[in-house]
Amino acid sequence: MIAVILSGGAGTRLWPVSRELYPKPFMRLPDGQSLLQKALLRAVSLPGVSEVLTVTGQEHYYSTLNEYQALRVGDYPPLVFVIEPLRRNTAPAIALAALSVSERHGADETLLVLSADHLIEDPQAFAEAVERAKAAAQRGYLVTFGIQPNYPATGFGYLERGEPLAEGVYAVRRFVEKPDALRAQGYLEQGGFYWNAGIFCFQAGAYLEALQTHAPEVYRSVLRAWESSPRETPQYLDTQTFHAVPSISVDYAVMEKAERVAVVPSGFGWSDLGSWDAAALLVPADPEGNRVLGEAVLIDTHNTFVQTEGRLVAAIGVEDLVIVDTPDALLVTRKDKVQDVKKVVEQLQKLEHEAAREHRTVQRRWGSYTVLEEGPRFKIKRLVIRPGESLSYHLHHHRSEHWTVVSGTAQVLKEDQTHLLRTDESLSVLAGTPHRLANPGLIDLVIIEVQSGEYLGEDDLVRLEGAMAESALAGD
Amino acid sequence: MIAVILSGGAGTRLWPVSRELYPKPFMRLPDGQSLLQKALLRAVSLPGVSEVLTVTGQEHYYSTLNEYQALRVGDYPPLVFVIEPLRRNTAPAIALAALSVSERHGADETLLVLSADHLIEDPQAFAEAVERAKAAAQRGYLVTFGIQPNYPATGFGYLERGEPLAEGVYAVRRFVEKPDALRAQGYLEQGGFYWNAGIFCFQAGAYLEALQTHAPEVYRSVLRAWESSPRETPQYLDTQTFHAVPSISVDYAVMEKAERVAVVPSGFGWSDLGSWDAAALLVPADPEGNRVLGEAVLIDTHNTFVQTEGRLVAAIGVEDLVIVDTPDALLVTRKDKVQDVKKVVEQLQKLEHEAAREHRTVQRRWGSYTVLEEGPRFKIKRLVIRPGESLSYHLHHHRSEHWTVVSGTAQVLKEDQTHLLRTDESLSVLAGTPHRLANPGLIDLVIIEVQSGEYLGEDDLVRLEGAMAESALAGD
Repeated sequence: MIAVILSGGAGTRLWPVSRELYPKPFMRLPDGQSLLQKALLRAVSLPGVSEVLTVTGQEHYYSTLNEYQALRVGDYPPLVFVIEPLRRNTAPAIALAALSVSERHGADETLLVLSADHLIEDPQAFAEAVERAKAAAQRGYLVTFGIQPNYPATGFGYLERGEPLAEGVYAVRRFVEKPDALRAQGYLEQGGFYWNAGIFCFQAGAYLEALQTHAPEVYRSVLRAWESSPRETPQYLDTQTFHAVPSISVDYAVMEKAERVAVVPSGFGWSDLGSWDAAALLVPADPEGNRVLGEAVLIDTHNTFVQTEGRLVAAIGVEDLVIVDTPDALLVTRKDKVQDVKKVVEQLQKLEHEAAREHRTVQRRWGSYTVLEEGPRFKIKRLVIRPGESLSYHLHHHRSEHWTVVSGTAQVLKEDQTHLLRTDESLSVLAGTPHRLANPGLIDLVIIEVQSGEYLGEDDLVRLEGAMAESALAGD
Repeated sequence: MIAVILSGGAGTRLWPVSRELYPKPFMRLPDGQSLLQKALLRAVSLPGVSEVLTVTGQEHYYSTLNEYQALRVGDYPPLVFVIEPLRRNTAPAIALAALSVSERHGADETLLVLSADHLIEDPQAFAEAVERAKAAAQRGYLVTFGIQPNYPATGFGYLERGEPLAEGVYAVRRFVEKPDALRAQGYLEQGGFYWNAGIFCFQAGAYLEALQTHAPEVYRSVLRAWESSPRETPQYLDTQTFHAVPSISVDYAVMEKAERVAVVPSGFGWSDLGSWDAAALLVPADPEGNRVLGEAVLIDTHNTFVQTEGRLVAAIGVEDLVIVDTPDALLVTRKDKVQDVKKVVEQLQKLEHEAAREHRTVQRRWGSYTVLEEGPRFKIKRLVIRPGESLSYHLHHHRSEHWTVVSGTAQVLKEDQTHLLRTDESLSVLAGTPHRLANPGLIDLVIIEVQSGEYLGEDDLVRLEGAMAESALAGD
């Protein structure tokens, strides 16, 4: 069985922690792991998983890689990546996974499709549900996982089970859109209705066949993009042909229309963390109903969620609030208005505000950088360069860079000379000087970079040809 | 006439903008000026002011000086400073001013005592009130300024006027404590009651005489501290004798007890900015009643005040809130609870939390520094060194310092060599190396300092004797 992880999303509902370049899978939970890391650990801990195939966007590829590598656990099954140039929702993403797996392992291979933006708290129950789903998938069913509702949610689609197909496996009678409160209450009381959790299990060939039948244009356009893309590792998709792929979810394109659709009802502690009121529940409440992650002083405050990184939050006389603080943006919202966070993001997108798109920390091929401070004529960054990685050979016309090694060892090629910088040592690279920075060591290299000059835009970077230029692909 | 400015305070009511080391006089208003700067400008623009004497605490002296110097206007009357080693409220501070003025100009000299923690919006009306007060002071009266109330405030003390003494000058019939709402309403309707604004005018000798009569212990202890302090510029007070001075306000010690007390009623647009709801009024409201200083996105939000420096604030579905953001601390409070900000500060003081005491920007004799970022093994500061100033000659045992000049020119003495660093140039000073940093230029020197090492506490600093050590007094 191949585990397929979909790593992406829009990054709106948990803003300011989630951003366009840092959507929900990258959100770190109170235990320090991201949802994406949890999805990978969930996948590799299932019995019989022979490969983990991750489908992600090119703007999320390095972030995804960095999350996986940060786990630093050995003995994984192979990790394979398919990289989409554009966001096209789940039906095309799963089709790419099915095509990749069919081509390499045959159309009979079973896929377990895991989304990376929800939480599963009972891995044992999940593994049991997967076993049942796998058996049904191997009989040709398209299997979805149904979550036993424990309250009349109006924010999820539901599905109704039909006749039993095997122990704990049912045919799906129908899918239903997000209901109003009254109908949701009815589903809960009647029984046999489940939340549609976005987890699927089917054979690669069965999915592609159903897609061809029920969404032939999606099938044809994805197949054409796949066939236009030269095989490489990781597998990038051809941008031009991928443009023609419609954006559509797997539910609309396939599951709601196909014939042999089954559901495995389960109760494995699923939570979609779809908004800040859901995310708040991960933090235990104090006797006043307050949930605090970070440093806070609360006076006469009730039922309030506070999440903060590094900054002290003081609240007085408030209740039912959500306060989420990040280095460059702060959210204060009433709990029953958390859905409107997307309106904030829409406004920011209209303004092309950076806080909609990225954090102060930006993931790169070689590691990451964080903008610590910007001001007139200067910008300060912390660079983290992974062992063995290096930035491209390049120069800047307008800025000088002054580096101090805070941890690890740096190798700097500057003009024709190589310098080795140890912890606490520093070096300046003046504007116009070709240079390359690498981490030859075995631990992360952490450097404080002070940029000075009249113009400090990221676009003042000229990559240079030559012996040192082989890494000039992307992302410095 | 000598203008006396009292520059100090506890820094609790406008936290997190005000701090123990950065009380209300240092608060910057939307126009960019601090209350202290406004007090100085108010003093020097009055006719007949021959000197401005500032009484301040030693922890506020350099901040006060920096505020005055930042105004960069010439042609001031002389600026004189008296520096208290401990906070003892207003009666002793004014006594020190009176002693200093008596000694240098004679006991008949008139003092106009201005507190630096309120706002006066009509300087013309203020100047007229001062003229009337001065005339009464010169007839031996202790004059206070009474603000015509425009609402039944319960947060101020009141005074009731008695018989007229001259045009616009009345005897004071009585002082009354902060009243309840009913009595405040009565005062407003009855008329002849004024808020006690904390602005005074009297002859130096008249004040000292009244203090000797009505608070002899305060008089004796202040006199003893004054006489125990060697004359110097600025005038520091002897710490040991000053310890014996009681902490008491001028109202309790003198004004409420003395006989020849007069009031000049006025309406010069006085505001005490005693809490965030008062400070919010300085920012115009939008049609939703929101007042915003800084960058904010407000959705379905009403009657809310947002003040932020550099960070984006998003608010959804809230009303009657105050949101004040600073680089290291955030306040979210209901408007009718702003008085409880002091409870937050009390909690922080109990925890010995830095956010009660200082900001990330710390004032020094030579300028200021701001901690931009701290992390394992590194700390980053921005230093601003005023023209002609220099830090002491010193070394650090545990940290190396790496400097990049962002603006201006630096002169660095390192071991026995002098280096001149221009904008965009950098230099490292390794742990154990004696060094001194100076600004030989005519504009502010701005340096980014990256500290690296195992221990980065401010106390790792050894001042060195010798030719270069003359500035080893204070504050590096």
